[in-house]
Amino acid sequence: MTENYPPPILTVDIVPLTIRDGRLCVLLAERPNEPFAGRLALLGGYVHVDKDRALGDTARRVLRDKAGLDRLYVEQLSTFSGPQRDPRGWSASVAYFSLTPLEAVEPALERSGIVLVDADKPQGLPFDHDAILAAAVSRLRGKGAYSDLPARFLGPSFTLAELHRTYQVVLGERINIDAFRRKVMERGFLEPTGEKRRDEGATRPSELYRLTAQAAVFPRRF
Amino acid sequence: MTENYPPPILTVDIVPLTIRDGRLCVLLAERPNEPFAGRLALLGGYVHVDKDRALGDTARRVLRDKAGLDRLYVEQLSTFSGPQRDPRGWSASVAYFSLTPLEAVEPALERSGIVLVDADKPQGLPFDHDAILAAAVSRLRGKGAYSDLPARFLGPSFTLAELHRTYQVVLGERINIDAFRRKVMERGFLEPTGEKRRDEGATRPSELYRLTAQAAVFPRRF
Repeated sequence: MTENYPPPILTVDIVPLTIRDGRLCVLLAERPNEPFAGRLALLGGYVHVDKDRALGDTARRVLRDKAGLDRLYVEQLSTFSGPQRDPRGWSASVAYFSLTPLEAVEPALERSGIVLVDADKPQGLPFDHDAILAAAVSRLRGKGAYSDLPARFLGPSFTLAELHRTYQVVLGERINIDAFRRKVMERGFLEPTGEKRRDEGATRPSELYRLTAQAAVFPRRF
Repeated sequence: MTENYPPPILTVDIVPLTIRDGRLCVLLAERPNEPFAGRLALLGGYVHVDKDRALGDTARRVLRDKAGLDRLYVEQLSTFSGPQRDPRGWSASVAYFSLTPLEAVEPALERSGIVLVDADKPQGLPFDHDAILAAAVSRLRGKGAYSDLPARFLGPSFTLAELHRTYQVVLGERINIDAFRRKVMERGFLEPTGEKRRDEGATRPSELYRLTAQAAVFPRRF
């Protein structure tokens, strides 16, 4: 803190990602207040020092209060900062991303001013929200080949065929199903639920899998 | 910001890592002021909104002003937060790590109150600095097998044998030299300088390598 200057502004912004019709999508909300009132932007807000035990709590509270979304998987992305990114002054925004099945964001889409748009192209968002969105997509893709992240787009249990389709959407490329099955089973974050489900158009029921307890806990609660 | 509560404190903390005698080490400094005056801690400081164009600038300014270290490779780690981590109040600290050849931190070690200690064990540091240190080491190790990060511990040019020793220190395990050479050359972040140097004890001079221009720029200037 330098004498005679106001302290920097600290906010949290969230990139809620989901998959719709085989496309990676991001949830945006019309800003109710200035700056940029009425414009679509990432969900965000100030830390409430009386309520939030950490910035991850701020992210979860914003998702709950401003979009009715609860219990989402949230992970810290990076902190964006500078004198120009927010017209209110020198600011730092701690960005989070969440990965969610489409069903989980449907309640939010019934609210006025909340929409789902293509995450893969710049949306002309205010602040540096286009850069934050691009960083979230890049983090997801960068980790995708080796991580359990894409499984967060699915429900509590899923077939390997569903997981394979999800990885193809995330990575934006076709993946050989046999190589995929071998790699993903090697990583050790999946376990069979013991139940089976018949996929649409399939002749036989397929085994269902879930994330292991270790993978399924909310990690990295910074 | 909630009415009637002070805004959260925003600081930057830095984990300067280097290798000495085959051990991963971290640079710590005695705190000149309260809280925890006289205790060894990570280097840190407030954002100067009149000088810093981003939090990465704050990290570089703190390294320069408080330890005489300039032009280090600095990368954002994560932001740590909560009501308890700093006795001054609800705080967020944006943590950075730097990776440096030992020669580059030697000027800092001539200053009083600055020391280099083992980065691999908790040091009983104030705030949550032990957790920040552990997260930096874990990030380095997690990325080490696939990234150009460990090369930052070496000077502007180095032999593959030097790089191999550095990766072994970073990953804490023996690595087969032939597999290492193949993997590292595949990654494409090295190029030959065209010069050779005879390593100590070697019978023939070895080719020197450097990071490619693309790898060598300071990345991720958040």
